[in-house]
Amino acid sequence: MYKKLDKNDIEFLKSICNAEDVIVGDEISEDFAHDELAGELKYPEAMVYVRNRDQVSKIMKYAYENNIPVTPRGQGTGLSGASVALYGGIMVNMCKMDKILELDEENLTLTVEPGVLLMTIGQYVEEHDLFYPPDPGEKSAAIGGNINTNAGGMRAVKYGVTRDYVRGLEVVLPNGEIINVGGKVVKNSSGYAVKDLIVGSEGTLGIVTKAILKLLPLPKKAISLLIPFPNLESAIDTVPKIIKSKCIPTAVEFMEREAIVGAEEFLGKKFPDNSSNAYLLLKFDGNSTEEIEKEYENVAKLCLECGAYDVLISDTDERNESIWSARGAFLEAFKANSVIDECDVVVPRDKVAEFIRYTHDIQKEVGLRIKSFGHAGDGNLHVYPHKDDLPEEEWKERLSNAFELMFSKARQLKGEVSGEHGIGYAKSPYFCESKDENYVNILRGIKLAFDPKNILNPGKIY
Amino acid sequence: MYKKLDKNDIEFLKSICNAEDVIVGDEISEDFAHDELAGELKYPEAMVYVRNRDQVSKIMKYAYENNIPVTPRGQGTGLSGASVALYGGIMVNMCKMDKILELDEENLTLTVEPGVLLMTIGQYVEEHDLFYPPDPGEKSAAIGGNINTNAGGMRAVKYGVTRDYVRGLEVVLPNGEIINVGGKVVKNSSGYAVKDLIVGSEGTLGIVTKAILKLLPLPKKAISLLIPFPNLESAIDTVPKIIKSKCIPTAVEFMEREAIVGAEEFLGKKFPDNSSNAYLLLKFDGNSTEEIEKEYENVAKLCLECGAYDVLISDTDERNESIWSARGAFLEAFKANSVIDECDVVVPRDKVAEFIRYTHDIQKEVGLRIKSFGHAGDGNLHVYPHKDDLPEEEWKERLSNAFELMFSKARQLKGEVSGEHGIGYAKSPYFCESKDENYVNILRGIKLAFDPKNILNPGKIY
Repeated sequence: MYKKLDKNDIEFLKSICNAEDVIVGDEISEDFAHDELAGELKYPEAMVYVRNRDQVSKIMKYAYENNIPVTPRGQGTGLSGASVALYGGIMVNMCKMDKILELDEENLTLTVEPGVLLMTIGQYVEEHDLFYPPDPGEKSAAIGGNINTNAGGMRAVKYGVTRDYVRGLEVVLPNGEIINVGGKVVKNSSGYAVKDLIVGSEGTLGIVTKAILKLLPLPKKAISLLIPFPNLESAIDTVPKIIKSKCIPTAVEFMEREAIVGAEEFLGKKFPDNSSNAYLLLKFDGNSTEEIEKEYENVAKLCLECGAYDVLISDTDERNESIWSARGAFLEAFKANSVIDECDVVVPRDKVAEFIRYTHDIQKEVGLRIKSFGHAGDGNLHVYPHKDDLPEEEWKERLSNAFELMFSKARQLKGEVSGEHGIGYAKSPYFCESKDENYVNILRGIKLAFDPKNILNPGKIY
Repeated sequence: MYKKLDKNDIEFLKSICNAEDVIVGDEISEDFAHDELAGELKYPEAMVYVRNRDQVSKIMKYAYENNIPVTPRGQGTGLSGASVALYGGIMVNMCKMDKILELDEENLTLTVEPGVLLMTIGQYVEEHDLFYPPDPGEKSAAIGGNINTNAGGMRAVKYGVTRDYVRGLEVVLPNGEIINVGGKVVKNSSGYAVKDLIVGSEGTLGIVTKAILKLLPLPKKAISLLIPFPNLESAIDTVPKIIKSKCIPTAVEFMEREAIVGAEEFLGKKFPDNSSNAYLLLKFDGNSTEEIEKEYENVAKLCLECGAYDVLISDTDERNESIWSARGAFLEAFKANSVIDECDVVVPRDKVAEFIRYTHDIQKEVGLRIKSFGHAGDGNLHVYPHKDDLPEEEWKERLSNAFELMFSKARQLKGEVSGEHGIGYAKSPYFCESKDENYVNILRGIKLAFDPKNILNPGKIY
């Protein structure tokens, strides 16, 4: 198996990096033994804060030669355990590689180190009237982690996901060699899509040390619609009709009263309305109020025809901010209330209602409260079984039962195990169940092409 | 090496397919021994018109067991030789798998067989007020070929390339097994991006037998601007300024007088203007004239400031059609005039002018006329060395010299060998030169994961 770290290995790490950047054994905080959700604690033997690409390259080369597992880590905001060091070894912490390297306005690109936070990128480019569209709820995630999970977020309905905004990457391979894939070019049909393969590979194929991101001009105007419905079903059933009406909102979220009330309590702030059972929250953006109005008026009419009680329009930055920050707090609010776990399936947009109905129906059968919110507009659901006051063992058993049922339902609806949070190790059994042997063998072959010794982030995905 | 086909193999093919769909030996037309540009004639030993997925699967399984090379082929409109049977064997002709299978308006997807023509897709979805954005010049290409080369086209500036519009694929693997990758889902973070890897793999990893394409609502209005400039340099130098002005046109093409005159002769139709040395041709689309006007007025002003003589606005369907059909005929017009070869590099948008200037400068040095047009807005250039009346050997030598210089210049500008036409076998040496050994080894490893016997479309890319 893998080599355990000894004194010489630690000495080597300290010779490559600042001594104070190398944290060993008991000095490693529990924070680094798990991510934002997954349960079990697994410690690396050493954690190294790297400062530049060459350090990463030297560490990988050493680890490769000495058969030591390496786990790359960003802010640890993942939800599937991809950044947990299952087999010990070296954790390469990328958080201090956090510089914005270049804004290129002629090519509309931003070049960053992987440790730059998503919120930093957003603020920086907006100051230049530019726009980085991917918008996951967790703004304190590092961009490297967003790239590794191909993070999606709220604006995927109109703008797509992280992969669509990664133009080029600098990557340290498991053997320590450095490659560049893609670049500032807009098109590329030169050999296999290695850039696209590394995006979403959860740190198992290489360590991203630099990324060239694609930007867009900043839309000048945004309007949100909060639309109360009598129940979740009627709200969600409306979404495919919106899509069919040939209108593409920037975002289409669904939520239940309970999530809103939880977020109000958690944030200590009032939401514009919490009197209805269910809501759709839509955003439209564009370059002028008139342009947006035309679009949203049709959608508002359609929603009322589909049983909505009202359409609350929010057209100031402050009101938008208050609504969307509440939406961003749903997960934290759930977590403040109970231990939870998450199912992040994605299904075709017209199957969202059927899936959510199913999660309601199985609550009794599995004996768990199951609450959800999510991206109705792109079919990506966040469904949370709650532990409440169940004893640990009972919870694990019921949770596993609930996951089995939900992932099998998702398969039946031609969905996928993860829409945006990745497989990590926590969803690995369900992922493997969802794919046939031929498919998993191809993934193994791809891994082998990059990492014949299986030392980079082992134990993840399959 | 590979097994040569014998009577039993032909019998097998005829037992799987209609006997008249199996064409053998001398009965195979020369058309299938080359593609649209590349020179050498290479015949398959048998060509089979397949009608369904199961035939493809059975042929692949048989070929895999018997070590027979297989080359998938669509309309043969490629420009790099990817669909040429370098090692003989079986050519699987997909052209009769040409059915549109499903339009799903709730998920905004179109499911097609690979032999459906690009122009058929465009017409079909427009009748439903929907839009398939990728827009390569060659409308008689099959969608399967577009997927295999990750074709780009004119609208990539605003809308992206083929890969961005492929949601899911059904693929027959080299061993005959069938896998489905992606689907109607909008997001996906479930394992490696196999779908993205197959797109652009030039038929070397699997044979696409079904594709689920993403559609958008059809923009209601389009306006084109034809902008004459005193010379090509001043025209192209304007493009990064347009991008920097935070306006994203749908298309930004550049062209010289000579290409226009050639297309006029070829089509027997007049272009709106041919009195200037160089032109930019821009398109803007949107949902209303007002929305578009705001955008293009700024751009028009900017072009005049940068030295344009005039801005000719074309806002009727007829005038748009006449301009864009001339643009679509440039390649055919060049070909009618001389034997040519093509360099399809892509460079960062702000390096287009430098690259084009370089191709002008080297004409004397290499002793060839070199003409170009292309997608200034996305940095993808189509540069054509002309044979004119040179003897064959001299032409080959000078061409190879010109390619060496141009691809090396592209590398220096951080460009790539192919923006949209692929590597095939014709650009393979230049591609391999542009990548280091580590990178090429990864591609080999990926190929191995899919095709351990190297029987599917061997001799391509690297």
